[in-house]
Amino acid sequence: MSRFLNGYYEQLKPYVPGEIPKESGLLKLNTNESPYPPSPGVLECFNRDAASLQRLYGDPANRELNRVLAGHYGLSADEVMATGGSDETLELAFMAYSQDGVAFADETYGFYGVFADLHHLDVKLIPLAEDFSIHPEDYYDLGREIILANPNAPTGLYLKREAIEEILRHNRDHVVVVDEAYVDFGNESMIPLIHQYENLLVIQTFSKSRSLAGARIGFAAGNSELIRDLERLRNSRNPYDISRQSQLAGVKAVEESSYYRRNCEKIIAAREWTVRELNQLGFHGPDSHTNFIFVSHEHLTGQEVYEGLRARGILVRHFDRERIKNYNRISIGTMEDMERLVAAMKEIVTNG
Amino acid sequence: MSRFLNGYYEQLKPYVPGEIPKESGLLKLNTNESPYPPSPGVLECFNRDAASLQRLYGDPANRELNRVLAGHYGLSADEVMATGGSDETLELAFMAYSQDGVAFADETYGFYGVFADLHHLDVKLIPLAEDFSIHPEDYYDLGREIILANPNAPTGLYLKREAIEEILRHNRDHVVVVDEAYVDFGNESMIPLIHQYENLLVIQTFSKSRSLAGARIGFAAGNSELIRDLERLRNSRNPYDISRQSQLAGVKAVEESSYYRRNCEKIIAAREWTVRELNQLGFHGPDSHTNFIFVSHEHLTGQEVYEGLRARGILVRHFDRERIKNYNRISIGTMEDMERLVAAMKEIVTNG
Repeated sequence: MSRFLNGYYEQLKPYVPGEIPKESGLLKLNTNESPYPPSPGVLECFNRDAASLQRLYGDPANRELNRVLAGHYGLSADEVMATGGSDETLELAFMAYSQDGVAFADETYGFYGVFADLHHLDVKLIPLAEDFSIHPEDYYDLGREIILANPNAPTGLYLKREAIEEILRHNRDHVVVVDEAYVDFGNESMIPLIHQYENLLVIQTFSKSRSLAGARIGFAAGNSELIRDLERLRNSRNPYDISRQSQLAGVKAVEESSYYRRNCEKIIAAREWTVRELNQLGFHGPDSHTNFIFVSHEHLTGQEVYEGLRARGILVRHFDRERIKNYNRISIGTMEDMERLVAAMKEIVTNG
Repeated sequence: MSRFLNGYYEQLKPYVPGEIPKESGLLKLNTNESPYPPSPGVLECFNRDAASLQRLYGDPANRELNRVLAGHYGLSADEVMATGGSDETLELAFMAYSQDGVAFADETYGFYGVFADLHHLDVKLIPLAEDFSIHPEDYYDLGREIILANPNAPTGLYLKREAIEEILRHNRDHVVVVDEAYVDFGNESMIPLIHQYENLLVIQTFSKSRSLAGARIGFAAGNSELIRDLERLRNSRNPYDISRQSQLAGVKAVEESSYYRRNCEKIIAAREWTVRELNQLGFHGPDSHTNFIFVSHEHLTGQEVYEGLRARGILVRHFDRERIKNYNRISIGTMEDMERLVAAMKEIVTNG
């Protein structure tokens, strides 16, 4: 820290992203990316003509991307706001609605705590139940903004619409943010509810089901007043947040949604197969509704499993926090990837 | 504004970006982009293979880009920090060092005032002289962070190294940010001074001289302690700030710097020609050290010139603020673009 740094940020502990390995050949199952490439139209839009146009600024209002997203979800264009990744959307939502503090689960996406620290927010952590489930009643009448990852990470558990609606009804004077980063892996989105609940803000990303983690695209859906709040903040920080190439790619990705839907089905099938195989090897964890599983072993520690996989060229995500240190979060890849994982797990379980 | 919005942001007036016109065929001289496409290596890196890799996150540390930037400027890799556009770098610099307030010119890049508002900073505006010049003495011993655009915008005037050094020496306990967005158009960069002045932070962008406005790349150069401060903040907000494709493009652009240097020379030549032609038509303005000129006319108002150009298919930037409302900021394009501009100006001056 330099002697010039504002003391306001002295205690800040930055987010620690999943490792980006330097070794090639490593099977990367640590950051929940899609194992499938972007759709054909997206691939085609990366070309010399588009490259040449990079000399010009993109549209700071992201109009075309907002238009196709609105069309896809049956919204009007002023009910959606694309941004440079869902982390940016989340931070804007933290900034905009946290004047009475924020509440989120004690085990959830790690960036929530970082945003709360960054903006010096009063945080109420709501403990997950012993089985990692979320009890909706714990979120009633909290008198503050609520951030819910649904499905949750790293647990993979999903809260049904009825439960979310109860939380919305019990917090009418505060915004409830539903972070749906993993919703496309077999779950119902809350986006259609934005017309019913003026306090609902749904956030999604193109980094998981849409195979565009590298392109940095996220978006928020909410009633037009909420979106106007967020646009005002976005335009006061970084109006040119999405690169011109990523704007193009994002539009194509929405237009080719059926391609991504099929990929999600393949990922779900690979997940179900992997869970069955790992159960037989003594691994267990909460029911995954996402493109990752969160598993611990009857006899091996989380660290042992992590290192055993790493030694076999497979990278997964391990967290040091006491409550979850016996678990590993494993992204679901292709069936071939998962066969390689299961074979490695068999060796680890057999050889210790 | 929704009833949920944090009152802290109630008064916020967002930045107003230059217009992105919908009409095609319009000559766009309003946002200071380069008229030349990116270099050959950059054009080539937009391809299907790169597109396919967009499914993966890029390196959140931007290591490769920092490495080539450091090499280009003779720094070590921990003295440079790439970000998703220089606006992001600027905001981080506002956040990190503004605990005693900030000072900047009354006419300068419009985003400085927006960042100051967003973070509720105490602002000291330093008036430009009548001829728009900056008097270095006005910046001595201000007891706060200083933000200097050098060359300044929209005036185009440049402060020499000796003047900047005096400002640095007279503010040893506060960071002086030198925003060099336009430095490559014939001026000396202050980057080599970072080893001499621990309070110097230089910020540059790839949006102007490097033909990559659409890619969203900026960077800061400073001693390793300042860079560590800024990285801590960056990683607490948006570690994946540069898209994977833009990381690739940025690296190539630095490697092919000679291509961009030649373009800058062409732009300077076109600028000098344009200034001579416009002088003969009764237009005058401060000496430009940038890729734009800032001119007013003896008899016509700024608004009349703006509208006359717009009617002839040429878009320039006009600001409503009292002090500069008789001026227009005109980006320098190719010689062909400038010939079209001068021809239009001849008509406007002749026909009123």
